[in-house]
Amino acid sequence: MNIAVLGTGMVGEAIASRLVELGHQVRMGSRSADNEKAQAWIAKAGSGASTGTFADAIVFGEVIFLATKGESSLDVLGAAGAEAVAGKTVIDVSNPLEFSSNGLPTLAISNTDSLGEQLQRRYPEARIVKSLNTMWCGLMVNPNLVAGGDHEVFVSGNDAEAKEQTKTLLRQFGWQDAHILDLGDISTARGTEMLLPLWLRVWQSTGVGAFNFKIAR
Amino acid sequence: MNIAVLGTGMVGEAIASRLVELGHQVRMGSRSADNEKAQAWIAKAGSGASTGTFADAIVFGEVIFLATKGESSLDVLGAAGAEAVAGKTVIDVSNPLEFSSNGLPTLAISNTDSLGEQLQRRYPEARIVKSLNTMWCGLMVNPNLVAGGDHEVFVSGNDAEAKEQTKTLLRQFGWQDAHILDLGDISTARGTEMLLPLWLRVWQSTGVGAFNFKIAR
Repeated sequence: MNIAVLGTGMVGEAIASRLVELGHQVRMGSRSADNEKAQAWIAKAGSGASTGTFADAIVFGEVIFLATKGESSLDVLGAAGAEAVAGKTVIDVSNPLEFSSNGLPTLAISNTDSLGEQLQRRYPEARIVKSLNTMWCGLMVNPNLVAGGDHEVFVSGNDAEAKEQTKTLLRQFGWQDAHILDLGDISTARGTEMLLPLWLRVWQSTGVGAFNFKIAR
Repeated sequence: MNIAVLGTGMVGEAIASRLVELGHQVRMGSRSADNEKAQAWIAKAGSGASTGTFADAIVFGEVIFLATKGESSLDVLGAAGAEAVAGKTVIDVSNPLEFSSNGLPTLAISNTDSLGEQLQRRYPEARIVKSLNTMWCGLMVNPNLVAGGDHEVFVSGNDAEAKEQTKTLLRQFGWQDAHILDLGDISTARGTEMLLPLWLRVWQSTGVGAFNFKIAR
């Protein structure tokens, strides 16, 4: 499948590399076509990897992973115009973190709204699915790295078909069905985005980022 | 030990009953001394149980559990004056939930502040510890009810001694040391209070409240 990964940071690279490994055609999108990180990635990624501008990648992808910084997500998804994302599944992995000069980041959007919902409102024809935003990127694409994969990935979105497409990709990453928890419509992204403040504090107190939340029941 | 439990709801009752069972002297505090729920509780609770006004209970307790609705917590803790809580460990189990006519509750305080911090600022001589606020009350006092107790309770507070006192009580409830995660100072209560929106959505999607979050690592 042709997949766009928007963002060249750790998260974008982890997802793009894993998708190539799984045999997908992957175009990593960045602000400029000659982005250094994208060029470094393509030098080591296998065949099936390509790079381009955000707009190039959006046009290329049947499915789009949004792995940008939260502050850029809304604009980046519109890089090729709203019509270019109409009907496409957009898996939003980003979080609306706001960094300040001191202390842990806060959320720029939270409680009564979420970045996932803002994306869906701005691009009503896109099929936004919030997922994978609650963990370190190494676990996103290889859940078995800790506790034998016995922990949860959440899925939020309005479109049932787009959520199925997302779950299919999650299974390819190694997620077991029992650990893919569909929370409901895109407004449930408020819950998963608001997990970030706790994620940051667990990471701060334990010094370990390779963990994930499990629902013990 | 003489312990106050402020609040007569499900949470207050679960904690007060368990403390009596463990052999503590427990005074349940409520707005009026003849509160019906408090009277119903004392009729079935064992010896060691007593009831009174919030002020009575605060004066009685060496340790205070704050199990009120979040909107009342700040005022209730001052029912006997600020000097009555000076030096005492206050275990704040409440959450700043704001209920609206439709949809899930939101948080009245979040992101850049927390109820735990507001309590500490309002009563600077009290030793506020945020804990147990991230789960159904049945699990607070009996973690073995699910997954053999293999899930987490968080602790946030500025005072090391008060946190140790809290951990001692958590152990009496059945929490294993490995599952008591000290996140740091009271500002880390932002993380645990912001878990509530996800808790509500997991509960909504699974229909089960008897679950808790585990850190899989």
